[in-house]
Amino acid sequence: MSVNDAKDWSQAEKRIARIAFDKAYEREIAAVIKEVREQSSTIAELGDLWRLNDFLNARRHEIDGKYDYRYSVLIFVFAQLLREGWLHLDELEGLAADKRSKIVALTRM
Amino acid sequence: MSVNDAKDWSQAEKRIARIAFDKAYEREIAAVIKEVREQSSTIAELGDLWRLNDFLNARRHEIDGKYDYRYSVLIFVFAQLLREGWLHLDELEGLAADKRSKIVALTRM
Repeated sequence: MSVNDAKDWSQAEKRIARIAFDKAYEREIAAVIKEVREQSSTIAELGDLWRLNDFLNARRHEIDGKYDYRYSVLIFVFAQLLREGWLHLDELEGLAADKRSKIVALTRM
Repeated sequence: MSVNDAKDWSQAEKRIARIAFDKAYEREIAAVIKEVREQSSTIAELGDLWRLNDFLNARRHEIDGKYDYRYSVLIFVFAQLLREGWLHLDELEGLAADKRSKIVALTRM
């Protein structure tokens, strides 16, 4: 069964997916904000400033690319978020078993 | 008389110019660091993060371009630094009168 199309996701699954997605996003943003505050409190010279700048550029690029809520890529996104620790498997409870097992399998790749 | 070549600057003038240049640079960097600390202490959401990122990108680009210590451009650099307040005219005391008057004239352009 395909899992990569909007019609393969029930309304209940879509709600669960959206909540999990937003939660992971919030967590990652909160971590970036925390890191930026820490880094900026220790800035002493120009090199520190540009290191913070590089860090922000990299995070922005990565976050912009990663949080893609198209159903065609969503199980890949969830696998990455699980692998990186922004999402926990129990937050995907309520998704069909085939989706969950595909996501788990992808986290190992 | 030309003022745009290293041979037009005496050793004493070069020392004065270097000190003034470095002082302006230090002041501007200190101001950016202060601004970044203030901005980062008020970051609450993603938009604030990317605003800080945009601010850093812009400052970096501007500072990289502006602090150019070639004698061929130095009076233009000093004029800009005076205009922006990073340098004070009395810090150029000891430069030949023609250099100072050209720098002052350039600040008005």
